[in-house]
Amino acid sequence: MREQVAELIASKRFEYTVIALVVVNAIVLGLETSPSVMAVIGPFLLTLDKIILAIFVIELLLRFYVHRLRFFHDGWRVFDLIVVGIALIPASSGFAVIRALRVLRILRLLSVIPSLRKVVTGLVAAIPGMGSIVVLMALVFYVFAVMATGLFAEAFPQWFGSLGKSAYSLFQIMTLESWSMGIVRPVMEVFPWAWLFFITFIMSTTFTVLNLFIGIIVAAMQAEHDELAAEERGQLHSDQEQMLAEMKAMRAEMEKMRAALERQP
Amino acid sequence: MREQVAELIASKRFEYTVIALVVVNAIVLGLETSPSVMAVIGPFLLTLDKIILAIFVIELLLRFYVHRLRFFHDGWRVFDLIVVGIALIPASSGFAVIRALRVLRILRLLSVIPSLRKVVTGLVAAIPGMGSIVVLMALVFYVFAVMATGLFAEAFPQWFGSLGKSAYSLFQIMTLESWSMGIVRPVMEVFPWAWLFFITFIMSTTFTVLNLFIGIIVAAMQAEHDELAAEERGQLHSDQEQMLAEMKAMRAEMEKMRAALERQP
Amino acid sequence: MREQVAELIASKRFEYTVIALVVVNAIVLGLETSPSVMAVIGPFLLTLDKIILAIFVIELLLRFYVHRLRFFHDGWRVFDLIVVGIALIPASSGFAVIRALRVLRILRLLSVIPSLRKVVTGLVAAIPGMGSIVVLMALVFYVFAVMATGLFAEAFPQWFGSLGKSAYSLFQIMTLESWSMGIVRPVMEVFPWAWLFFITFIMSTTFTVLNLFIGIIVAAMQAEHDELAAEERGQLHSDQEQMLAEMKAMRAEMEKMRAALERQP
Amino acid sequence: MREQVAELIASKRFEYTVIALVVVNAIVLGLETSPSVMAVIGPFLLTLDKIILAIFVIELLLRFYVHRLRFFHDGWRVFDLIVVGIALIPASSGFAVIRALRVLRILRLLSVIPSLRKVVTGLVAAIPGMGSIVVLMALVFYVFAVMATGLFAEAFPQWFGSLGKSAYSLFQIMTLESWSMGIVRPVMEVFPWAWLFFITFIMSTTFTVLNLFIGIIVAAMQAEHDELAAEERGQLHSDQEQMLAEMKAMRAEMEKMRAALERQP
Repeated sequence: MREQVAELIASKRFEYTVIALVVVNAIVLGLETSPSVMAVIGPFLLTLDKIILAIFVIELLLRFYVHRLRFFHDGWRVFDLIVVGIALIPASSGFAVIRALRVLRILRLLSVIPSLRKVVTGLVAAIPGMGSIVVLMALVFYVFAVMATGLFAEAFPQWFGSLGKSAYSLFQIMTLESWSMGIVRPVMEVFPWAWLFFITFIMSTTFTVLNLFIGIIVAAMQAEHDELAAEERGQLHSDQEQMLAEMKAMRAEMEKMRAALERQP
Repeated sequence: MREQVAELIASKRFEYTVIALVVVNAIVLGLETSPSVMAVIGPFLLTLDKIILAIFVIELLLRFYVHRLRFFHDGWRVFDLIVVGIALIPASSGFAVIRALRVLRILRLLSVIPSLRKVVTGLVAAIPGMGSIVVLMALVFYVFAVMATGLFAEAFPQWFGSLGKSAYSLFQIMTLESWSMGIVRPVMEVFPWAWLFFITFIMSTTFTVLNLFIGIIVAAMQAEHDELAAEERGQLHSDQEQMLAEMKAMRAEMEKMRAALERQP
Repeated sequence: MREQVAELIASKRFEYTVIALVVVNAIVLGLETSPSVMAVIGPFLLTLDKIILAIFVIELLLRFYVHRLRFFHDGWRVFDLIVVGIALIPASSGFAVIRALRVLRILRLLSVIPSLRKVVTGLVAAIPGMGSIVVLMALVFYVFAVMATGLFAEAFPQWFGSLGKSAYSLFQIMTLESWSMGIVRPVMEVFPWAWLFFITFIMSTTFTVLNLFIGIIVAAMQAEHDELAAEERGQLHSDQEQMLAEMKAMRAEMEKMRAALERQP
Repeated sequence: MREQVAELIASKRFEYTVIALVVVNAIVLGLETSPSVMAVIGPFLLTLDKIILAIFVIELLLRFYVHRLRFFHDGWRVFDLIVVGIALIPASSGFAVIRALRVLRILRLLSVIPSLRKVVTGLVAAIPGMGSIVVLMALVFYVFAVMATGLFAEAFPQWFGSLGKSAYSLFQIMTLESWSMGIVRPVMEVFPWAWLFFITFIMSTTFTVLNLFIGIIVAAMQAEHDELAAEERGQLHSDQEQMLAEMKAMRAEMEKMRAALERQP
């Protein structure tokens, strides 16, 4: 029995059915945002939504039945479990946020379509290499946020009133959105030297982000290059091994010849 | 007769004439936007425009006469057909949009100037490699648009009132235009936790776009590098082939020597 | 006499004097922008300015005396001539613009400091490789500007009233500055489909600019790589030439041996 | 005694203690920005802050006792000295700025955590290679700032009233923040040709910054590539050395053979 289920969930037909269901669910969830559509076929959409959700739950149970605890070793299965799990929290609990998070189910497309899964895995794999520079970034942010709160909290509570507000405003400044007209020019009316603080911040974060990007680019190209270079080097090496072997054979031949010569009277 | 036409449309003179006509047409269409110019030589420009359009139609008919159905196998010919075809829709049909689209004829420069054609072909060739990541991008956009509509439609109908409006606003936020001062700060007055939603969106789209760019850069460099590496490897390989040949010759020589030795009494 | 002048203008001392004068002139021109400084030492600064300008004229005359017509073959000399020439146009001619352009003299630092000259030469050398893509960009701009003028001139004369205004607004939109909140959202109130026009424009220009950048990056790296690869290949080749020579010598040796063997009874 | 202290400050335990103290200090300084937290445990936090500062002073004294004047040869030690020194300036001196700068102590994390120290060293190492292009950038900025002041100071004193204001506004324009809607469109109402000035500025700075970035990318990849290439070349070279040695052995063998042959009657 368990083998049959394992065969079923590994089959192409099962995979395509799940993909089709996620796509249908995505369309249903999109249509649910339109009041005019809901007015006409609202009950139908909600029922369809519930049916698909039920199928997802059954699918995950089948997978769990097959894989048992190994189910939790695969990050994608855990991801599926979380996004389906969120959808099961009763919407009647009154939180619009919970209802909105149900939409995350559409992200199952990432886990069920192999090519998307590969892209996301690639993106996630780039993250650990960024570790140190992300910590550096966080530190710079924290230091500037503490300083900005200390300096500007009283005069500009709407932007720098607390550590959180300062961090948000500095993030906005880092993206260069309205940094001057919206924030720094007004601040400079009160603190004329404020440009020094903010331009230092912009320069250091821009430079750090730039280096983060360069790091990712160089790593991506290095990976690509290494693969190729290893192949080429292997080719060269085997060519040269062949030549060395040939030479050694020749030398052995010669030694025999010399022996023959010396054996002659 | 058909050979003569084929020779004509393949001639340099014909090519240059078409280029010249497209350039003149571009200038005419530019001048037509100026009311003061139109007041003086308006009828002349409109007549000139019609004459050039007629010549383009004749040109395409000649090409069709020569290539017959193979005409449609060349993407650039189809492109020509569409941009000239649009210009033939009667402007009296009242749509300002149709009249504006007539300007697309100027884009024929892309198909008639070889160096531009090459650049555009290069740009278009980069698109398929971006497939998976573009699908990923679209999915992220769709999920965030559905969520934004669910969360903010009631409070901010002008930005998130429907799926389309949400997608447009999220595109604006992705380009970082007025994202904070214009949209997120007002939203945060009502939903204080909204920064989490939008900063997650900015981070994930920025990171995805960055990886899209890196992918294109790496692919472009890889293509360039492969070409060179193949050449270098070829050079190396031929050097080594030469050496191997030399060695084989040496070994043959030796065998003859040993034979001579053994033949000796 | 001419040799002595040639020696003088080629000397390090002369070069340093000119650099020092340009720097002093830069400071003087900077100080002249401050009304409070001008109130105190204005006449002194203006006199100093005139003296330095006179020295520059004499310097250029000396260079012309030495190089004669070859003077005009060196782009940097022509650049010097233009920026000094502009400063000689009488400021009394009433154009504030001419007075402002006198400041361009400071740019002589680019021509007199070798390392800066090299950087600028490098930047300028990158331009021809961008030719086709810049033409493509200009074409895209022209087509969209003509279309925007045709479509929006009546409703939004301040942004799209003429071909020039449209081109400026599209440049602003390409830099993503206030493109949505400032321009496209207001336009969409009148033409609800306008987002299609502008997002197409943003996408195509962004993609083109990106490819322009990638082209420059790849070219820069290729140049760097070619140099190195040539060196390495040369090294490898000479190693292999050495081995081949060695092998040929061995073979000659063997042939002699075989001859000796066969000569034996 | 001095050896014992040297051993102590070089120990892992000492390093981890210092890191822990910096982290605690960072949290304390963060909490001090919150009035509600200060109202409850303010005195405790301030005391803790003072104790940690005292420990830092003792730590630096120990390091100075061990390294003596070599203390000043290590840039990171000088950095520590400065950020701790700033914290010792009496806050009662009334400058909120001095109080804010005390937060820089948190940056000691950069000097005490080895991986962060490495990242920062890498970033700083990239700066000298940017020398010429940064000087070029500064020169472009200075020239445009002097010109902008000369041209627009009277009409727009809030943006271009002095050399400093012009430089700040040009920096804002370079980051593309509100450059058109905020600054250039208003300026164009008075000076219709102003777009030429500002678009020239945007183009030249963007192009220069782009080349700065490309320079850093190429340098980073070159460094990476050189390392690899050296390794590969070494490998190849050793292969070829081996082959050459083999050949020399073969030739020696042959010479011996020829000698044997010639010795034969």
